[in-house]
Amino acid sequence: MSHTRDKLMAAAISLSLARGYEETTADAIAEAAGVARRTFFRYFRAKEDAVLPDHDDCLRRVRDLLDKVDPGAPPLAAIKRAAHMVLALYAQDPVTAVRRYDLLRRVESLREREITTTGRYQRVFADHLHRAEAGGDAGARLRHDVTAAAVVAAHNHVLRQWIRDKAKGDVHARLDAALVSVEALMRGWPGETTAHEDALFVMVARPGTPAWRVVQALKDAELVRA
Amino acid sequence: MSHTRDKLMAAAISLSLARGYEETTADAIAEAAGVARRTFFRYFRAKEDAVLPDHDDCLRRVRDLLDKVDPGAPPLAAIKRAAHMVLALYAQDPVTAVRRYDLLRRVESLREREITTTGRYQRVFADHLHRAEAGGDAGARLRHDVTAAAVVAAHNHVLRQWIRDKAKGDVHARLDAALVSVEALMRGWPGETTAHEDALFVMVARPGTPAWRVVQALKDAELVRA
Repeated sequence: MSHTRDKLMAAAISLSLARGYEETTADAIAEAAGVARRTFFRYFRAKEDAVLPDHDDCLRRVRDLLDKVDPGAPPLAAIKRAAHMVLALYAQDPVTAVRRYDLLRRVESLREREITTTGRYQRVFADHLHRAEAGGDAGARLRHDVTAAAVVAAHNHVLRQWIRDKAKGDVHARLDAALVSVEALMRGWPGETTAHEDALFVMVARPGTPAWRVVQALKDAELVRA
Repeated sequence: MSHTRDKLMAAAISLSLARGYEETTADAIAEAAGVARRTFFRYFRAKEDAVLPDHDDCLRRVRDLLDKVDPGAPPLAAIKRAAHMVLALYAQDPVTAVRRYDLLRRVESLREREITTTGRYQRVFADHLHRAEAGGDAGARLRHDVTAAAVVAAHNHVLRQWIRDKAKGDVHARLDAALVSVEALMRGWPGETTAHEDALFVMVARPGTPAWRVVQALKDAELVRA
């Protein structure tokens, strides 16, 4: 991330907040940042790119990360690292993150572009899970899609709450905590059988169920030893 | 849904597939459907609206449904009904659904608009859960966001698979099955305690765990009767 790029982005957001996004031109942004107009276009294709994080670059890095991951490692671990990579786009500059959020609340087209980007990350995450656990049944593919959606929802939730708290505190730690919940949750995906030695099983029952019924059900499923 | 509207939509998708979306004009669509240009604009603001489902109308009906729902009913039940409402937009005309999917694969701007719409439904679902279970802690709000994302991911998964299967079979039944999984999953959201009579608890353990340890853990948590 270059210093000039950061200065241009800060100027683009400040001017858009002060004058309105539509009214803010690339010329005015360049002038406010003390650079030439052509310098602006060396960093950004359009004004829109100057107020939003560089998701194209981040998507490339996310794909790179997922392509290079050890095929033996749990696929969700790589997705979690990728989610932190996206979060870093915001966390590395909390002041800009808060101001950008203000701007997005005012400009629908920018909000829509962020939603589109969110969908793109979600697709990349789901595709990684499909590839990593290829050969699964239809239920597995549904689980992959739901997992990707849950990770992205947790990321967006944490990011939004952090920004509403004026970007105070360690947002990466918050994402860790949220992803622990998501990971525990997804272990409970129903209807799939696993034959692994280190697998977990999940039992759902109503509180107050007699103990013998629980034990019987577990024994029937050959899940506990007597 | 009017007959003229359906005819215009079918013509818009057919022409776009045959000639390219950019090259297809409102005039040509009206002509192909045998109506006047001004008739086209009575039904659609722009060409884009003629090839995509009427999500603005559907979002209104979804909000209506959620506003009128019995506050005592489980909030996820209403979300599930809303998801079926969205699915009906596609299910009511399988031929158009399949052809539209072909078109969306070719035209990025249309795909992006569908993603934006997806995000909008997800927001409405999450907001309903926030309202229905207001006063929850930060964990509850995260759970609401993840639940909304999971329902929307399940809907999109089912819709996509159905369309790839040439829109054969009962897609609403498929969504029911997927949402049963999502609902069972979300009951296992970790770290929340419930005091309801009809609550469920979820236990996670390794296969082969001795039965007495399972029973002890359940008794310690006051979840089973001896």
